[in-house]
Order: sequence, then C-alpha cells, then structure tokens
Amino acid sequence: MKKEEAMEKGLSLVDRSTIAMLATYGAGYPDIRAMIKNENDGLKTIWFTTNASSGKVEQIKKNPKACIYFVDFDKRMGLRLIGTIDILQDPESKQRLWREGFERYYPLGVSDPDYSVLCFTALWGNYYHKLANVTFEL
Amino acid sequence: MKKEEAMEKGLSLVDRSTIAMLATYGAGYPDIRAMIKNENDGLKTIWFTTNASSGKVEQIKKNPKACIYFVDFDKRMGLRLIGTIDILQDPESKQRLWREGFERYYPLGVSDPDYSVLCFTALWGNYYHKLANVTFEL
Repeated sequence: MKKEEAMEKGLSLVDRSTIAMLATYGAGYPDIRAMIKNENDGLKTIWFTTNASSGKVEQIKKNPKACIYFVDFDKRMGLRLIGTIDILQDPESKQRLWREGFERYYPLGVSDPDYSVLCFTALWGNYYHKLANVTFEL
Repeated sequence: MKKEEAMEKGLSLVDRSTIAMLATYGAGYPDIRAMIKNENDGLKTIWFTTNASSGKVEQIKKNPKACIYFVDFDKRMGLRLIGTIDILQDPESKQRLWREGFERYYPLGVSDPDYSVLCFTALWGNYYHKLANVTFEL
C-alpha cells in the first residue's frame, strides 16, 4: 500500500466516521474516551466539542499532545493521527460547530462558557488495513 | 447509577467485547490501537497477545502505564480501565492464550520468541452510559 492510497483510504474512514477515540495524558496514565467527530478538514484538522469543565480539557491544558483514532472493527481498518489540541472559545468557532440539541448540554446556548471547541492538528498519521500499515506526515 | 451496577454493566461490556482500545505512552505522544481481547478475569485482569517486535511492546517496556477502553457506540456506553501492563513470555501463559490460526502470525508456533502475552492489571475504572458515569477502584 502506497502513502497516497493510505491517506485516501484513511480520509474515507474519517469522512464516514461519526465517532473517534481521543487519547490524552491523564493523571500519570494515558486516558481514552470516545468523542463525536464534529468536523474535519482532510486528515490535518479535526474538530470536537466538549464541556470546558470536563476532565479532558484540564488534561489538554496541562499537555496538548494527543492521539485520535478512527476504527472500523468489521473491516479491520483503522487510522491513528498524532498531534496537538487547541482549546477554542472564540464565537466564530463555537457558532460554526453548534448543532441542534446542544442546548441539552449547554443551557446558555452557543455563548455558554462551558461550551468549548477542541481543534486537533495532526502531525502524522498511520493507516492500517488487516496486516498492512503505512505511516505518513501531515 | 451505583458502583455495583456500574461494575456489573462494565463487566458485561467486557465479556461481550472482542476488541478493546489500548493507549500507551508513545514517542512523546499518547498512542492508541485496537486490540483483540483474548481473555479477562473480571475487570481486574485483561490478556492480549502481540508481537514482541511491535512498537507497543517497546513503548510498554519504557512505560507500563496504560488505559484500556471498551466501547459500544450504538448504546453510548463505554468502560475505561487504568492500570499497568506486564509483558509475559512464560510458556504457560503463551500456551493458554494460543488460538487456532496464530501460526499465521507466529510461524514458529507457541514457542515463537516473537509471540508475547500482555497482561493488563487494572487499578481503577470508569463506566459510562449516556450522560451517567461512575468511577471505582479495582
């Protein structure tokens, strides 16, 4: 599998995924949680939304290095992206990523200070399908 | 949700899961990959098998702290276990976890030095279902 093919298939997996796993540096241990993938710009940038008061935001403030993982268990394929996360609170990003139903989590609406945007920027990725895997810079 | 209920439902999720996500400390960044769950003893001990030559084994040798994550996307439930991993090469463990078809990955059979067992021991866990989540010691 060539890099171009790996990146193309990895992007196809990201585009059709609604969920991604996010790993951060926790309290002395790595930490994983599933996240709803809100938007992506190719493989380079992935946006999520979360509570500013959540444990993951605290972890990211201490160490922004992260791993995002997309997986299709049935097809035995997955994509790991390695990079850093910025915590955004600007009105434009918050408005752009706001979805119907979010008021359930953020009662004050789009300007709710507990509503935060996470912007992940990838440095490199690794795509695998069955026993083949390819690493590429981003 | 009480601790007993969270642990019971978390165990049910582990018992019916064939795949788990494993996060380790990578080269300056957290690292995630999907793993086949080979065996578990309650929530305390989870066994996996892998290649001794794999990147994850190298990472675990440098830092055995890890997070294991079981997830059911459709039901919006997940279990995070935090603990440490021991790399086992003893014949008894290797024999016990050997499965039909492994010779595809380890041509020398159960004594193949590239065939390794990872034994994860949990210190604590966190089970969530929708918006409820409970943390417990193990």
